[in-house]
Amino acid sequence: MSDVSDLLDAAVAGGRVSLARLLTLAERGGPEGAEVARLTHRLAGRAVTVGITGAPGSGKSTLTGALCGVVRAAGERIAVLAIDPSSPFSGGAILGDRVRMSDHALDEGVFIRSMATRGHLGGLAVATPAAIRVLDATGFPTVIVETVGVGQVEVEIAGAADTTVVVVNPGWGDAVQANKAGLMEIADVFVINKADRPGAAETRRDLEQMLMLSAAGSWVPPILETEATTGRGVAELWATIAEHGRHLAVTGELGRRRVERVGEEFRAALLAGLLDRVEQLAGPRRFAELRDQVLRRQLDPLTAVVELLGDLPSGQTVTGTPDTSRRGRAGGGSC
Amino acid sequence: MSDVSDLLDAAVAGGRVSLARLLTLAERGGPEGAEVARLTHRLAGRAVTVGITGAPGSGKSTLTGALCGVVRAAGERIAVLAIDPSSPFSGGAILGDRVRMSDHALDEGVFIRSMATRGHLGGLAVATPAAIRVLDATGFPTVIVETVGVGQVEVEIAGAADTTVVVVNPGWGDAVQANKAGLMEIADVFVINKADRPGAAETRRDLEQMLMLSAAGSWVPPILETEATTGRGVAELWATIAEHGRHLAVTGELGRRRVERVGEEFRAALLAGLLDRVEQLAGPRRFAELRDQVLRRQLDPLTAVVELLGDLPSGQTVTGTPDTSRRGRAGGGSC
Repeated sequence: MSDVSDLLDAAVAGGRVSLARLLTLAERGGPEGAEVARLTHRLAGRAVTVGITGAPGSGKSTLTGALCGVVRAAGERIAVLAIDPSSPFSGGAILGDRVRMSDHALDEGVFIRSMATRGHLGGLAVATPAAIRVLDATGFPTVIVETVGVGQVEVEIAGAADTTVVVVNPGWGDAVQANKAGLMEIADVFVINKADRPGAAETRRDLEQMLMLSAAGSWVPPILETEATTGRGVAELWATIAEHGRHLAVTGELGRRRVERVGEEFRAALLAGLLDRVEQLAGPRRFAELRDQVLRRQLDPLTAVVELLGDLPSGQTVTGTPDTSRRGRAGGGSC
Repeated sequence: MSDVSDLLDAAVAGGRVSLARLLTLAERGGPEGAEVARLTHRLAGRAVTVGITGAPGSGKSTLTGALCGVVRAAGERIAVLAIDPSSPFSGGAILGDRVRMSDHALDEGVFIRSMATRGHLGGLAVATPAAIRVLDATGFPTVIVETVGVGQVEVEIAGAADTTVVVVNPGWGDAVQANKAGLMEIADVFVINKADRPGAAETRRDLEQMLMLSAAGSWVPPILETEATTGRGVAELWATIAEHGRHLAVTGELGRRRVERVGEEFRAALLAGLLDRVEQLAGPRRFAELRDQVLRRQLDPLTAVVELLGDLPSGQTVTGTPDTSRRGRAGGGSC
């Protein structure tokens, strides 16, 4: 697979087509995906990752575009992974508000990649860190991961960055009420975007109250105000992200978060791999037998799983949902 | 575990506390969850499931409440599973707009359950069908599953119902643009809720255009208009859901969807079970060794997984992300 090695050399030298191709291989997984991981791993570990998340319509993409402008003005390169809920029948990510980032479309210093959320359990949880590793290895000092702030997987992915920015709007109320606590949990920085609209002060007060109720750590998430469309507050946001990065480095939290993250990736990749192997592991005949009983409704799925796992080599059987006591943030390390 | 059997008897006889307890056991999984599945499976298979999904703020909950009113007026019982994105630190689902369903709080014929999205890969994918099975087995002829229409897992869960209702609002545009195609894919019925607001006609035209572009099946999703707060159009929606149910039955599609669904549940439960067993399967020492190398960044996670899976009994190794070519709708059957 010297192919992958050649692509990597070309991407490190700035080849955007080679980089896009590497990302495709990384996202797709399989033996070539593993080869990409093996080769990029050696070069990776320097990039800062920033998660940006918020409700649909909160202006995340515009804000991300504005941040790219600030970073470029400082002469640094930046990559954006935009994770879109997407349709299996569209065959790929939908552009939607990606278009708003078109200011940067011709800038060689900005690389924007839309990732689809196709695939299944573990799909994004494996593909996202793999894509970040590629961007890291090919020399982007900052990788922004933008996700919609609704949905279990999407919130977890944004929360697994070094610094997570949660974007809300004035009047943040009913619309994201249900997910407020989930977003509070992962936020390192709050941004009230569209801050020129009525209700910004109430939203700030609301956030401050929720912050007072939550466990105090050594970092209290600051609350910034931006107008992404005009650029107001965006440079301050970038400075705050950098400040949080220094806090992480000084306290040793950066290392801890990254260990958690790689543990979580290991766990997700292992699950994906096991899924491909389970039929073999359980014995193909026994597997088919139990599955058929389930499909014919002669047996419920959970009992079938208890029986299948009981057939596997060694030890006691445990089944059902995994431990639900984990925190939202990456969670892993213990695998 | 005669406990579970006693609880089931009490719940079938109408005991709401026993029913709530059974649901807790089912959602929690483990040996008791498997026992609940085993016992409820025999009694289940009659309930019609209706998925209701849409963007935050689209009025899903109000509409669900209004549907409950229509069903109750016809003298039937109904259960609602409301799936909330929730925080690990809140320790449970957040009420949010559940409150809007309080009209029915004292009605014995309506049972409303909020499920948290805590847990991890496979958590909801295992817990939701388990909870539906309990409600089915205890005699609810209809189970509504309400989820937010953003996020991979949440959309898939709504899409796995017999009939899936996608709720949009006039001016449906930017806010859910990114997920439009994902929602188109799962919709059996479209509802333009808050249809009294400006833009309803444009939204209808927009939906019709998208429907024309998508593959024509034997069922073309109708587009209804409702005002959930006043009740306008809600009886028509209920009639349309019933009509879609008859279509499913007549065409044999109902059986096919249910087989897919149970196959998908089997797959998700198997993954959850394997996760608990992987250390044993791989050999605890080898597992710890490779995991430590990953956590110390000496080895990338995907290569570690390739090595671990290579150590497992039998056959060739495949790793990386699972096959991403699956359709959004339940997907399984082949496990």
